[in-house]
Amino acid sequence: METSRPLDALNQARNKRVMIDLKNNRQYIGKLKAFDIHINVVLEEAEEMVNGELSRKLGVIFIRGDTITVISPS
Amino acid sequence: METSRPLDALNQARNKRVMIDLKNNRQYIGKLKAFDIHINVVLEEAEEMVNGELSRKLGVIFIRGDTITVISPS
Amino acid sequence: METSRPLDALNQARNKRVMIDLKNNRQYIGKLKAFDIHINVVLEEAEEMVNGELSRKLGVIFIRGDTITVISPS
Amino acid sequence: METSRPLDALNQARNKRVMIDLKNNRQYIGKLKAFDIHINVVLEEAEEMVNGELSRKLGVIFIRGDTITVISPS
Amino acid sequence: METSRPLDALNQARNKRVMIDLKNNRQYIGKLKAFDIHINVVLEEAEEMVNGELSRKLGVIFIRGDTITVISPS
Amino acid sequence: METSRPLDALNQARNKRVMIDLKNNRQYIGKLKAFDIHINVVLEEAEEMVNGELSRKLGVIFIRGDTITVISPS
Amino acid sequence: METSRPLDALNQARNKRVMIDLKNNRQYIGKLKAFDIHINVVLEEAEEMVNGELSRKLGVIFIRGDTITVISPS
Repeated sequence: METSRPLDALNQARNKRVMIDLKNNRQYIGKLKAFDIHINVVLEEAEEMVNGELSRKLGVIFIRGDTITVISPS
Repeated sequence: METSRPLDALNQARNKRVMIDLKNNRQYIGKLKAFDIHINVVLEEAEEMVNGELSRKLGVIFIRGDTITVISPS
Repeated sequence: METSRPLDALNQARNKRVMIDLKNNRQYIGKLKAFDIHINVVLEEAEEMVNGELSRKLGVIFIRGDTITVISPS
Repeated sequence: METSRPLDALNQARNKRVMIDLKNNRQYIGKLKAFDIHINVVLEEAEEMVNGELSRKLGVIFIRGDTITVISPS
Repeated sequence: METSRPLDALNQARNKRVMIDLKNNRQYIGKLKAFDIHINVVLEEAEEMVNGELSRKLGVIFIRGDTITVISPS
Repeated sequence: METSRPLDALNQARNKRVMIDLKNNRQYIGKLKAFDIHINVVLEEAEEMVNGELSRKLGVIFIRGDTITVISPS
Repeated sequence: METSRPLDALNQARNKRVMIDLKNNRQYIGKLKAFDIHINVVLEEAEEMVNGELSRKLGVIFIRGDTITVISPS
């Protein structure tokens, strides 16, 4: 992978499934549709996981960037 | 859905019912009337949920953006 | 209600009674006299509620914006 | 009272006794001598209250704005 | 005391002994040598107090401003 | 090592294995591929450690800078 | 010591051993190699202390500024 800047890695994940960990220990899995420099993120077909178990099926969600710790491939 | 930027997704949810999760684990459900780049939000016909149960019927509410974690369709 | 921006909703609440929830779970009820873009707020005839019970009658108070979660009609 | 902006209310409290609540639940009572747009504040003849009881007599104190929740007449 | 701005009060405390309270409940006592607009502070002959008891003698210390709640004469 | 600025040290760690400690006590080990001035970081071949034990193998991950405390060679 | 600004004190500590306290109560001891205006810091020959006991020998480390409370001579 070639990434000179961190947001390049997010760009390469666009339209792919990612797992997003929040500071409150919730996880969201879904297709990465959009992000900005604040790391505000939009997922499609999103599912919320709590303690590793499916908590809610949510569809399109907006996640505020400052609550995110890690974004990784799901 | 086409969203190149995260705020586009919020724009598409305008006048629709959304569920907003806060850092303090409260949820607010209502019709999305307005938002700004700080993700400050105004809901109409808002209801507050605590632990998944209706806590208060609130009418029009203003939610400060930095307390929000996730905005999703209700 | 017509609000294109969140602060419009606060503007419409000016001189009306509002309930303000803080991150520390205190509530303040009073007449909304002033606010700014940081959501710093001034209430008149303010009362502090803790766990839903009247805690203190305070008169004019200044609330620092970054401690606020929700502003709603009282 | 006429206040179009929140800092106007602080200006009107200058040289008067105010009570300042911090996020850490301490309170400071004293004469408001100075403040700035960050809500950094200087009190004179300041007293610290913990759980409503006098904890320390402090004289002139500087309080960093981001630790303040509410400023009210004492 | 004449202070039109909060930092004036810090300026008047320069080279005097002050007590600095942090958000983590530690206190530092020492001679105020320098500060800036972020309230980053340098103390000389600094001592750390934990629960009101001397914890460490530290010499010159740098305290990051955003961890400070109150600065007062010691 | 010659580093006049902190980011120089990160630059020298590029393409090397690093260990990143987060505020939530999780650790991530992987090859440092990218970082920016917010200390947003991208790791390759990343592994998550919880309490010193391997928790998840994650591949490429993006870590939001404001959740990071320390970056060190692994 | 002459320091008109807080960062002058850090500059005088360059290449000397310092002790850095973090908000999470960890301490890092090492030779101060670099810092910037955010108080991001690089230490060489760094050791991590937890509850006053040596936890890890780390070599060169980068510490994110917003996690730091105090920097002092070790």
